[in-house]
Amino acid sequence: MALFSKNIDNLQQLFVEQLRDLYDGEQQMIKALPMLIDKASNFALKTALQDHLEVTRDQAIRLEKIFAEMGEKSSGESCKGMAGVIAEGDHLVSRGGDPSVTDACIITSAQRVEHYEIAGYGTVKTYARQLGRANFAQILEQTLEEEKEADQKLPQLSDTINQQAREAA
Amino acid sequence: MALFSKNIDNLQQLFVEQLRDLYDGEQQMIKALPMLIDKASNFALKTALQDHLEVTRDQAIRLEKIFAEMGEKSSGESCKGMAGVIAEGDHLVSRGGDPSVTDACIITSAQRVEHYEIAGYGTVKTYARQLGRANFAQILEQTLEEEKEADQKLPQLSDTINQQAREAA
Repeated sequence: MALFSKNIDNLQQLFVEQLRDLYDGEQQMIKALPMLIDKASNFALKTALQDHLEVTRDQAIRLEKIFAEMGEKSSGESCKGMAGVIAEGDHLVSRGGDPSVTDACIITSAQRVEHYEIAGYGTVKTYARQLGRANFAQILEQTLEEEKEADQKLPQLSDTINQQAREAA
Repeated sequence: MALFSKNIDNLQQLFVEQLRDLYDGEQQMIKALPMLIDKASNFALKTALQDHLEVTRDQAIRLEKIFAEMGEKSSGESCKGMAGVIAEGDHLVSRGGDPSVTDACIITSAQRVEHYEIAGYGTVKTYARQLGRANFAQILEQTLEEEKEADQKLPQLSDTINQQAREAA
């Protein structure tokens, strides 16, 4: 959040602000994911998180391209929402008393991040269309689909992990 | 967050902690929604938020029933994630320079809340099934469906609002 935040007067300005918010969120995730990868025990989960870190970097680059094309800077917003979601996840993951429980905590935390991003990208994709920027809508749709895929992949991993967590001491 | 947080040793404990987290999130929304209702200008949006406040109260009561049946207390978790999402929304909504832009900000903020809750309820519903608590899974499914419905209702309102926001000064 900028110290003195400007008013948002129309949809174009809201679009740019929301993109900055998402960009800051992606940067926060790029910093947070290595800790989750480090704490994960299940190999498939570790791999999925590693893959998602690469995808997140690509998503940030896509946003940079949109900013460059609009002649707008990418900085200026600090996403309090993502900061809260990540802080919640950090706290939860730190409490896992068994490796399988830690893995289950990582999965639920990651799913909250995915859904937060699904909401954010869904919104900016709609704004892009309404502003007549079909090219931007297409770029944002790609990220949106990736987030949905990541969200659907996690429950597939959770069956075995939750079974172990159920039987933990 | 409790000052000295206990380890989470198994899926049952994680289930209870996540329910407490959701319960705190619902309480935060019950406090936050009246401000959004007050700031909304579009009549249909105001009504949808008012309806959602009633639904949120019902969802909190449903969680209380689950806690009572398990003999667990509902308090003990402070949902930092929801606090962040609400703080982000408050900040955004306060910057709307035109009533239509404020309404658009309310919609995008509300959608982030819905998606955060969709992730949370999806997780606890899965845990309930894996713990053999089909009755709880059914109750949680009801809330999950309500959150999904609320998320789908919002874009229907946003077409007119975003059109106005696009043309604002």
